Parts: sequence; C-alpha cells; structure tokens
Amino acid sequence: MDARHELGIGLLGLGTVGSGVARILPAKSEALFGHLGTSLTIRRVLVRDREKPRAVRLDPACLTTDPAVVLDDPAIHIVVEVIGGEEPALTFIHRAVAQGKHVVTANKEVIAKHGPELFRAAAARGVAIKYEASVGGGIPIIAVFQHDLSANDLREIRAIINGTTNYILTRMANEGSEFASALAEAQALGYAEPDPANDVDGHDAVYKLAILSSLGFHTEVHPDQVYREGIRQLAARDFQYAANLGYAIKLLALARNTTRGVEVRVHPTLIPRERLLAKVDGVFNGIEVEGDLVGRLMLYGRGAGAEPTTSAVVADVVDLVQRIVRGESPAYQEPPRVPRPVVPMAEVTSRYYLRLIVADRAGVLAQIAREFGERNISIAAVIQMAADAAAGTAELVVMTHQANEAAMRQTVAAIARLAVVSQVASFLRVED
Amino acid sequence: MDARHELGIGLLGLGTVGSGVARILPAKSEALFGHLGTSLTIRRVLVRDREKPRAVRLDPACLTTDPAVVLDDPAIHIVVEVIGGEEPALTFIHRAVAQGKHVVTANKEVIAKHGPELFRAAAARGVAIKYEASVGGGIPIIAVFQHDLSANDLREIRAIINGTTNYILTRMANEGSEFASALAEAQALGYAEPDPANDVDGHDAVYKLAILSSLGFHTEVHPDQVYREGIRQLAARDFQYAANLGYAIKLLALARNTTRGVEVRVHPTLIPRERLLAKVDGVFNGIEVEGDLVGRLMLYGRGAGAEPTTSAVVADVVDLVQRIVRGESPAYQEPPRVPRPVVPMAEVTSRYYLRLIVADRAGVLAQIAREFGERNISIAAVIQMAADAAAGTAELVVMTHQANEAAMRQTVAAIARLAVVSQVASFLRVED
Repeated sequence: MDARHELGIGLLGLGTVGSGVARILPAKSEALFGHLGTSLTIRRVLVRDREKPRAVRLDPACLTTDPAVVLDDPAIHIVVEVIGGEEPALTFIHRAVAQGKHVVTANKEVIAKHGPELFRAAAARGVAIKYEASVGGGIPIIAVFQHDLSANDLREIRAIINGTTNYILTRMANEGSEFASALAEAQALGYAEPDPANDVDGHDAVYKLAILSSLGFHTEVHPDQVYREGIRQLAARDFQYAANLGYAIKLLALARNTTRGVEVRVHPTLIPRERLLAKVDGVFNGIEVEGDLVGRLMLYGRGAGAEPTTSAVVADVVDLVQRIVRGESPAYQEPPRVPRPVVPMAEVTSRYYLRLIVADRAGVLAQIAREFGERNISIAAVIQMAADAAAGTAELVVMTHQANEAAMRQTVAAIARLAVVSQVASFLRVED
Repeated sequence: MDARHELGIGLLGLGTVGSGVARILPAKSEALFGHLGTSLTIRRVLVRDREKPRAVRLDPACLTTDPAVVLDDPAIHIVVEVIGGEEPALTFIHRAVAQGKHVVTANKEVIAKHGPELFRAAAARGVAIKYEASVGGGIPIIAVFQHDLSANDLREIRAIINGTTNYILTRMANEGSEFASALAEAQALGYAEPDPANDVDGHDAVYKLAILSSLGFHTEVHPDQVYREGIRQLAARDFQYAANLGYAIKLLALARNTTRGVEVRVHPTLIPRERLLAKVDGVFNGIEVEGDLVGRLMLYGRGAGAEPTTSAVVADVVDLVQRIVRGESPAYQEPPRVPRPVVPMAEVTSRYYLRLIVADRAGVLAQIAREFGERNISIAAVIQMAADAAAGTAELVVMTHQANEAAMRQTVAAIARLAVVSQVASFLRVED
C-alpha cells in the first residue's frame, strides 16, 4: 500500500497532552481521515518508563525509551512532540526534521527560543513544523495569524495567555485572597505546579508572546527581549482599589508594532473593567488583536489542559494529513521575517498606578506631587484610601496620565526617598 | 509567463466591500504575494453603472456592465463575488465555477440557500468556493470550523451575528430607548438599512446560522428550517427587568447538535450578564462554540463593514493564490455532510421569561400559577414589577425552569384567555 494511504505517527511524550493525543487520534480516526481514504496509526511512543501504568490503551510494543526508534522509523511521517521543555525536545525536533518528518509540537519554549532556526531547517528539508498548541491551548491563534489575518497589518496584541496566573488573579479579585493563599489553592486544584515560578514569574507568558509577536509582526522576537514582571508582588487591596477605580488587574502580554520597533512586555496591568479582555476570568485565556482591516478581534477559550491542547495538536495533524494525501507541500510559506528593533522598556510610555504608604499629615501630597511635576508627569487622580491611626500612616493611590517609563521610575525612586513616604507598595501599569 | 505567476482577479460588484477589495489588494499586493513570486491583478470589475464616480482608483477600462466579460475571461483565475443577494449572484457563481474559476464570496444568502449544490458543482469542476466573509465579517469562523476545530465534535453554537440588531438592542439596554427610536438612530448612523426587515426580523442571522450549523455539524440546514423571531416586539422595560434579574437580551442564533437532530433557532434571548456573550455590545459580533475537546471557545470582532469584510475576502484570496502557485488543489476536502433531522420548535425545551399585564388584585397569581402547574411547567420566579393604579393593573414577570416549547405555548394561550390577564406583553426564551 502506498505510504500516502497509511500514515504513521510517532509520539514523543505520553503525559497529559500525549495521552490525550493517543486517545483521540485512534478514536476519531475514521471521522477525521476516512473520507480521505487514509488511515493514521500511532506507531511509536517515546516514554521515560515503559512499565508505568497508563490511562490510555496502547499496544505495549509501541512504547519505547529510545528516541531513535521513533525518530528514525521510516514508516513514521509525522512526529508529535509533547515532552515540553527545551531539551531534549529541541534535539528531537531537529532530528525529526533532518529525517524528513513533519513535526507537530506544543512546545512554547522551543518555538519561542529556537523557532527561526527550526523553521529554516524545516523549509530547507521541505517539511512542516506546526505549533498551534504552543499558544492558547485550544484557541486557534497560530493558524489565524498565518491564514485568516493574512491581509492585515497587525498593530497590537494584548493577551491573557497564562491560565494559572489568571486563575490566581481572579481569586484575588473575587475573594479578596492574598497571593500566597490563591497560589496554594491553584496548586491544590492542579492549576499551578509545585514550583510555580514558570507561571507566576511570567516566563510562560513571555514564551507565548515571543511566538505571537514574531509571527504576527513578521519578525523575530527572542524571549530574552521581552520585558517581564510576575504577579508575586500583588496585594489583595490593589484589586479592591483597582475595582473602585473601574479596573481589573490582569497579567497582560502586550506587543505593539510601532515605527520605532516592537514593544513586547508581560506585566500585571490595570485594564478598564468594561473591556472584554478584563472579563476573561479563571483559567481561561483571551487574545485580543488589532489589525488595520479587521479592527479589534478577540479569541477566548481554554488555554491549557489535555483536551483543548489535544484539539490543537490533532487539528495540525489533520491539516498535514490532508496535504500529504494530496501530494501537496505541507510547508507553509509565510512572508519573510524581518529583524526589527525592540523598544527598550525605558522608552515605553504608559499610564501608571502607584500605591504609597505615607505619613498621615498635611503637606505630604504636595511633596509627592512635586516629584511628579518636576519630571513632567501629569497626575490623573490621587485618592486617599485608608488611614492607619496607630501607625500614623495613610495609603495613597496615584493614577498618572501617559508618561515615559524611565521618568516614571525616577519619580518612584525619588518618592521612595521622601521622609514622609514609608513605602511604595505597588507600581503597576495601566492600559486603557 | 506562466499563469501561475501572474494571476487575474475578476470582481463582481463595487459597493462597500468591492471597493475595499479593489483598494486593498493592489495596495498590499507586494507584501501578500511578493514572497510567492506572484503578482495578482484585478482584471475586470462588474458594475451596474460605469460612469458612477468611485472612491477607489481603478483603470476605467476594467469596469464592465457585462458579466460575461468577467466570467469568461480566461486570464481570470479567481472570481470575487460581493454583489450580495440571491440573484444574479447565484447564476454568476455557477457560471464562474463552470468556467473553472475559483470563487470567493461574501454572500450569506447564496451560501445558506444553495451552498450544498454549489460545493458539489465546485468539487466536480476541481475548483474552490470560499466564503469566510459570509459570516461574522472579519471574524475567522469558516476556516476555524474547517481547520482549527477539525478534531472536535461540535455540540453547540451560540452566536450574536447581526451587528444591526445588536446595536439596537445595546441602545435599548443602555439608554432605555424603545425599539422605534433605537432603529431610527441605527438608520441615521448607517448601521441599519432604510428597509430594516432583513436584519430586525432575523433573516440575516438565519442565513448565517444555517451556514454555521451546516458546516459545524457536517450536515445541510436550509434557512427555511431555522426557527426565526425578530426583535420588533421588544420593549424597553424588558431590558430593565432582565437587567434586574441579572440578564441581558440578545438576538441569539442558537444551534444544537443533539441525538434527536439539529436544533436551529434565532430569537431574542435572555443571557446571564456574567456570560462573555452577554457582553458583546454595539455592532460587534460574538460566536461561541462548544466542542468536545476544545470546550467553550468564543470569537469576537466586527461582523460587518468594508474593512473587516475585506479582511476575510482577501484572506480567502491569499489562501487560493498560495495553493494555485504551488500547483495544489485549492478545493478543501471536508468530511461528507450527512442530512440530519431538524428538531421541530414545538419539541424544544428552554427556560422562559413572560411579562404579563394583569388585574391588580388578590388571587390573580393563583390563577396564573394553576395554568403552569396543569402543564407541569415549574416556575422559577414571579416578580411583581409595577402597578398602574389608574388602570387597576399590575405587571408580572414570570421566569420558568426548563419547559417544553409546545406546553409553554399552550400555557401562554391559556393565560391570555384568563379574565384577570389583560395582556401577555412579552414571551422570551432564556439560555443559561
């Protein structure tokens, strides 16, 4: 039988997503591939431990601990990489490409850090690397950027793309929890890892933003170029005060395509509550895009989990199979990626939210206002929130108009040095 | 030069969308097609009046009033149909297909009514009919159904897909306007046609729902099979009462894939305000989908207008050009569409909202409750809203639990016959 009519899959990894793929592909094989006159078989699965009990039924002979058994099998046409992490996934993908196999991956770290080199290698070898599952779980965003928005010049991407932090922030907003207890709850529910750094410090969102901005702006943004702040420093009262002012606080991944270069940053951000993005709650993700033709578009859905991610992985597999069966080139020919400068964070402008603990006496505000005024930063609102009579302190919230980041940082440093200021408790950006 | 490297477009129609396409395609030609080594030229444009002044710059020699000049030109590879309406668009598309040309259309009426026959004709001729722009303007939904959600069994589609009615309903909700004045305002802003029937009576939403449910559930739903109610009967006070109860009112296009068949209906619907779909306001569209793997997904954006629609049309053109240039078959091979029964509206179950004008005296509620009880419909809440002392009447709002539509209609008829009931002022469905 022609290889075109019996295609082989090699699966790298049999964790949450791998098990989903191993369960769904055979179960839906007839519905997905029957009308194409094709069958698709999972021939080999790379695991760490062949003896481990598995929830998914697979011929035990499929399982192997030797990557070469998967990567060098000539009857395998598509390698699905769902190991995650940089290595050995990167090496495996390179080897699969070198062996002329198409690759479907859910690996945001590898694509964010090594996308350009991998895409070049794949193009040279005439194979495809598809990575829909690397961003936004089941939300179609890679294909939407590559195909559906192809007529647009994208100006801006604003995304809530880490479900773990969005769950924690939603709990802090709705229940008044502090970060530590909201994190513990997320861990108990399996939404956060025992070591939560990758999520709560923003690394995961940075990888995804690097992928989205590179693809959306036809350039190459490395994760190291993305400004990053996590959510550990947020306090429950910031959520209350933000809500009183009409804002939600979200870990926003923001990319802007400007004439001076690309702005790329991940940080907690006040977003007006009437904006749809502010209403993306819990483990859900929301990706908002501004294009010159389409205007504002938002995609919303489950950004993680076995089934949504499997949805994206299998969609990539189906697309490859359709093209392989018809003898077509599955390598997507996207417009060339042109290196662009990344705007340094110091040169960015934003609005800001500051929460200060100050001495509760007359004249304090004047001193603080002077520091803003000297650096030409205009204050939009100052609100005295709560006074602590015992400590003799009061809490002030300051919202600025648009200001330069460097000037704002100097202002904050100067304010922190004032004798009447005991603490700059929060320093957050605001996007309207 | 090979036809593959110099492709011709024939444009049918030079109205709002046609002008957008005629402006954008040449302006972005290099960015879109340069890396493919292709150029794309708009060779012919069918117009009604060659002398009419046009905002878009086109060689006047391109313009023709003779459809054959476009449809029979062998140098035209792709015909873009943006005339709208059933005829002569349908005849033109058939002829383009017969001449071996690919078709990109924004025509929801033609695709909803004649999609199956057109797709069969195109498949037989080896050409593609692409219709991303027919639903949701710039929101990618056809491609998302065909490709990105291919691994999913879709269970439900809930959509706000008519911007005109959504604008009117948003005004009624936010400003307390009555339908007539909100419509007049929408007309003044160009959001509604002088004859608004196609939008406000729900025909437009029905076409789009027929397209979405046919594609999403792999079946053939004709617009005549879709239950339809428009928004003319809504009163400002329904929006107030709904808001008090925690609901928004939207013209919802709802399709459900059940074991008994397909449920397809368009009607004003109370939606809990915390649902993201309830927050789709103004002229924006929102399409929510439930898939077995992806869970709940929502796409949100501008559902109409020259530029968003052009975004979708040009994306379809770009996809065709990519495939033509690589010598690939541009005809998408979707799973076969299997006829499914449509569940009669009488057999549907829903929750209901009733607003009654009743005599303001004791015992009235008991009589009304008895009518519900006799038909086994359970009442979730009864709220007396306002009394009109002069008329001796009061206003009652009744919310039911899940009930059968036929039983509910019998109940409403029986209630209307009660001497103590002067009017069943509103009868709306509720989706939680």
